[in-house]
Amino acid sequence: MAFRMQFLSDNAAAVHPQVWQALRDADTADTPYDTDALSRRLDGAFSELFGREVAALWVATGTAANCLALATMVQPHGAVLCHREAHIEMDEGGAPGFYLHGAKLVLAEGEGAKLTPDGIRAALDPIRDDVHQVQVHALSLTQATEYGRCYRPGELAEIVALARERSLKLHMDGARFANAAAHLGCAAAEACGEIDALSFGCVKNGAMNAEGIVFLDPGLADVARYRRKRAGHLQSKGRYLAAQVLAMLDGDLWLANARAANAAAAEIGSAGGRRLLHPVEANEVFLRCTAPEREALRAQGFGFYDWGPDAARFVAAWNTTEKDARALARAIENL
Amino acid sequence: MAFRMQFLSDNAAAVHPQVWQALRDADTADTPYDTDALSRRLDGAFSELFGREVAALWVATGTAANCLALATMVQPHGAVLCHREAHIEMDEGGAPGFYLHGAKLVLAEGEGAKLTPDGIRAALDPIRDDVHQVQVHALSLTQATEYGRCYRPGELAEIVALARERSLKLHMDGARFANAAAHLGCAAAEACGEIDALSFGCVKNGAMNAEGIVFLDPGLADVARYRRKRAGHLQSKGRYLAAQVLAMLDGDLWLANARAANAAAAEIGSAGGRRLLHPVEANEVFLRCTAPEREALRAQGFGFYDWGPDAARFVAAWNTTEKDARALARAIENL
Amino acid sequence: MAFRMQFLSDNAAAVHPQVWQALRDADTADTPYDTDALSRRLDGAFSELFGREVAALWVATGTAANCLALATMVQPHGAVLCHREAHIEMDEGGAPGFYLHGAKLVLAEGEGAKLTPDGIRAALDPIRDDVHQVQVHALSLTQATEYGRCYRPGELAEIVALARERSLKLHMDGARFANAAAHLGCAAAEACGEIDALSFGCVKNGAMNAEGIVFLDPGLADVARYRRKRAGHLQSKGRYLAAQVLAMLDGDLWLANARAANAAAAEIGSAGGRRLLHPVEANEVFLRCTAPEREALRAQGFGFYDWGPDAARFVAAWNTTEKDARALARAIENL
Amino acid sequence: MAFRMQFLSDNAAAVHPQVWQALRDADTADTPYDTDALSRRLDGAFSELFGREVAALWVATGTAANCLALATMVQPHGAVLCHREAHIEMDEGGAPGFYLHGAKLVLAEGEGAKLTPDGIRAALDPIRDDVHQVQVHALSLTQATEYGRCYRPGELAEIVALARERSLKLHMDGARFANAAAHLGCAAAEACGEIDALSFGCVKNGAMNAEGIVFLDPGLADVARYRRKRAGHLQSKGRYLAAQVLAMLDGDLWLANARAANAAAAEIGSAGGRRLLHPVEANEVFLRCTAPEREALRAQGFGFYDWGPDAARFVAAWNTTEKDARALARAIENL
Repeated sequence: MAFRMQFLSDNAAAVHPQVWQALRDADTADTPYDTDALSRRLDGAFSELFGREVAALWVATGTAANCLALATMVQPHGAVLCHREAHIEMDEGGAPGFYLHGAKLVLAEGEGAKLTPDGIRAALDPIRDDVHQVQVHALSLTQATEYGRCYRPGELAEIVALARERSLKLHMDGARFANAAAHLGCAAAEACGEIDALSFGCVKNGAMNAEGIVFLDPGLADVARYRRKRAGHLQSKGRYLAAQVLAMLDGDLWLANARAANAAAAEIGSAGGRRLLHPVEANEVFLRCTAPEREALRAQGFGFYDWGPDAARFVAAWNTTEKDARALARAIENL
Repeated sequence: MAFRMQFLSDNAAAVHPQVWQALRDADTADTPYDTDALSRRLDGAFSELFGREVAALWVATGTAANCLALATMVQPHGAVLCHREAHIEMDEGGAPGFYLHGAKLVLAEGEGAKLTPDGIRAALDPIRDDVHQVQVHALSLTQATEYGRCYRPGELAEIVALARERSLKLHMDGARFANAAAHLGCAAAEACGEIDALSFGCVKNGAMNAEGIVFLDPGLADVARYRRKRAGHLQSKGRYLAAQVLAMLDGDLWLANARAANAAAAEIGSAGGRRLLHPVEANEVFLRCTAPEREALRAQGFGFYDWGPDAARFVAAWNTTEKDARALARAIENL
Repeated sequence: MAFRMQFLSDNAAAVHPQVWQALRDADTADTPYDTDALSRRLDGAFSELFGREVAALWVATGTAANCLALATMVQPHGAVLCHREAHIEMDEGGAPGFYLHGAKLVLAEGEGAKLTPDGIRAALDPIRDDVHQVQVHALSLTQATEYGRCYRPGELAEIVALARERSLKLHMDGARFANAAAHLGCAAAEACGEIDALSFGCVKNGAMNAEGIVFLDPGLADVARYRRKRAGHLQSKGRYLAAQVLAMLDGDLWLANARAANAAAAEIGSAGGRRLLHPVEANEVFLRCTAPEREALRAQGFGFYDWGPDAARFVAAWNTTEKDARALARAIENL
Repeated sequence: MAFRMQFLSDNAAAVHPQVWQALRDADTADTPYDTDALSRRLDGAFSELFGREVAALWVATGTAANCLALATMVQPHGAVLCHREAHIEMDEGGAPGFYLHGAKLVLAEGEGAKLTPDGIRAALDPIRDDVHQVQVHALSLTQATEYGRCYRPGELAEIVALARERSLKLHMDGARFANAAAHLGCAAAEACGEIDALSFGCVKNGAMNAEGIVFLDPGLADVARYRRKRAGHLQSKGRYLAAQVLAMLDGDLWLANARAANAAAAEIGSAGGRRLLHPVEANEVFLRCTAPEREALRAQGFGFYDWGPDAARFVAAWNTTEKDARALARAIENL
């Protein structure tokens, strides 16, 4: 942690003051697990946000949120279709294989880690409809993607239509759903489309250790509740998780925090010019950047990850200061 | 939550002020997962406590702690021997079956949910040593037990010897290990004996949502780290969990809190007389109690669980006041 | 194999001549897996036997039959209720835990390894309807039981009614279904009752290595087909399995073989007198028998298993000769 | 089965007369499972064949053989590296995910479905050595490959060396190991190299439903025995499987059958000319072939599979006649 200005990731940033306040307010006696007053408010709060009746659960991590959601959609002998660079494939330590009891991930291609109808068809079509090959039961997409790209409502509608045509359930990994919604400027319901379940990310957006799983098909939530307990994710002091999630929704803190992070990323991206590997649509910036250039930036106090041998990733968080973002932008311009 | 005086459980009590302080102190930038400065202090802190080199991990729940520990000891085709009323058998929603990939729980009898060498032998001996029957790979015991009973160091030594003779690994569910250690008045190492892994409970003892898994056989920790991630239990802001666990160890807060809870339980138990179903050795009191008697207690503002049709369970927490404990004791005497 | 007269088990007896003939007749070119002409006849043959439309699959072993059937009924977070001495609990090496991905077996009591409505209720009723305890999804009963006892149609009807009332699916382990049907003298459909799936045993009744799984709820068969392949049980030369099963049905060989075995067991049982531990209703005889008595029998050339320290089990097979059965009966009388 | 001359696959061919004889010879009383005299001969027979002490098990299918072998090498949180077109990835209905409890398949590239050191490195090197990514525990290669290509002993030695350098266990899918050994003209031990376990295919080479799993590291066999039972693959009349495997070894029937199939394929391949997609090194021939050409061949009575839109696969079996092979060769030349 030698770097004064951190752009490593949004996943370890400090906790937002309003989340702290909610945690303190939850520090009174209440019943255990998810029977407390706060946990019981989740369904209502998310139903209001999405303008329809949904069922919502808290859980401590995005990996658990993704896998518990998928476990309601995919049988052990089935598969999930996702992008080749999806977090569930690349960075969850095999959690989908664990939670889905050996179900497979079928990988599709697409620019910027975005699935497209063509990419989905190219992955699905070669699968013979017989018992010798694993059949796809659900599709998982990430909003914003692992490269900070956003699906527009129209793109989502196309993918949803294709999935339904193939009888696939739909899950969205929304670890950075807030950043996508903020970028798109549309309602939450439009930013996810007609999917079955959404992992509603909070940790990367100012919470401490609580995420939401929002079942837009509320009928799936019952299985998820059993699976959450079975996975050791039903915390006994659940009210401290519910409090965090509710704090994020309260007064649209989730959008405010995401807008701040997106703005910082936009500032940095604006200095990227021809270095930019992906349009900046959320809070991540990927830049072509040689090793000496990266060394130069680090020497100026900027922390970030290498992205392969010739690139770097910069992530802005809810608490990235305008000053730091500008400093980084200037440093990039001066490379 | 209509009851003014809560004895339902220690599992939903408020968070101790020193834990709050530690959480706030952790609210600075650091690296994610368990690479932060606090997480890196866990091995050392527990090694000091146990007087030997151990490896320690944080995790959010006791169920996850138990199952991750057992997953390092039991192959999918094996079994864990535990008491018929062990938490892993009765109250973890099948989590051992999930984490151990279908391994079985073999159940043993014993008074007060305590395993005994005889009870263990009675469960092990009928198992034929062939592929048609599931072989036991590990033994799990709970300290203090589900009925608030404690294993003395000598009892542990006997069980450990038997387990080793049968080539079994040993796990201890220490959701209330602090209460046992406080009751026994011995060192942590003596309160667990020569086992391989201990779930070191913090949540029931003043923490918010962090438990320790202490590998007294440090060689097992590496597999646990992979399994923790795979189970979605590797939180990205892990420093907030490490902070809680370290706060519990700091200045022996874990013992102070347990002593307070034990004292309250002792007070209540002292009023139990012939009603007492189990000696009070930790922070739980089980009393024979008719339905009208329970109603009477509730009418006076005491919250607690029925324990079958003719009994009640009262649990004291770190923050149970002397006044409340005394009031309950008096109410029991007056029944 | 020092014993001239074998009563160890029916599970290793020779193959019936009609099964051999069917195997040889199948030795012509055909398509692989279950696409061949013989495999395609299974649904029809069993539909005729059960007087309703069923779907049927072949599989090599009873363990696979039981577990594949149950896998269509039980979710990984659920449980199967069965008798404490059921084969799936005692002798399948943890296969249910494997095939059901960690689902649990909930054990019920009952004389002669028979489930009763009271025994089932006693096992179900204490399970709290919450996520902390594993919920039962299906019930499995064995016909004839592990002690050679048969469920009468009326007994089955009661159990079925109870199971439906509790929303449980129903499976029957029919490793010795033929012996039960022969004993009961009723139609196949009456000998199993209104269950969802039956493991129709052939191996213990004259086949080499083929069992049937009969889905009386044909909608379950599709999942079983995927799971069979996934378990490595879809043999490429499946026609040799289909041939065996069809040979068993052809001309009711299954009943003829079972009647022969039952008759031999009856002969033996008739000599049992007060030694009899269970009424003889199928092809197994359990007798009280001291160690010296067992030695005496073995010295006369009879092979059989000890059944604990004070008893012996004698099993007749389709090819047990009248002469051998009589010889054993006489030897028992002379003890 | 309208085609007079079958080249669809070797997996459904008739059973060799010597196998039939061995089956009939096994039709005497013996003990169940793998305790019979024939099953107990397997270790010795394979130890002789491989010129070292090995442990061997029978099992009914190649899928079960592959997965049981791999289950001794790979932990549930690990992965198997294999070729993108390996049978375990493409055609086993997700069995590896089931048997390995959610472990992953990591896919490598290579011409003709052959792994190469470069291809292996390209798949392994990007995997970060941390808990977020699934680590490879074993490598599985197919001899002969899915395209009928053979690894030379020198190629195997290179791959073995690389695997050992990376601490990987090694498995060989030898569904057509006989065809490879016959082609290479080397000893069995050279045709597999210094691996840990081999699926020794018999079904495609004249057996009915028995394969061998040969543990060249005999220490792995014990776990496999438990897992075989747990998977429902321990047949009670196991002697009929042992008999088949022993018959294949007896007098090197396995090589004789493979040579016959290879010779037929060579005949067909010799007519392939520029149509040949892969050198013919075993008993499979892949030819560029338009739809009308395929129709023309079928009209002449030849059965075979399309291989994508522009190719066809022809497989010779142990019983493919020289006459049929020549007829097909001529028909191909005349296209």
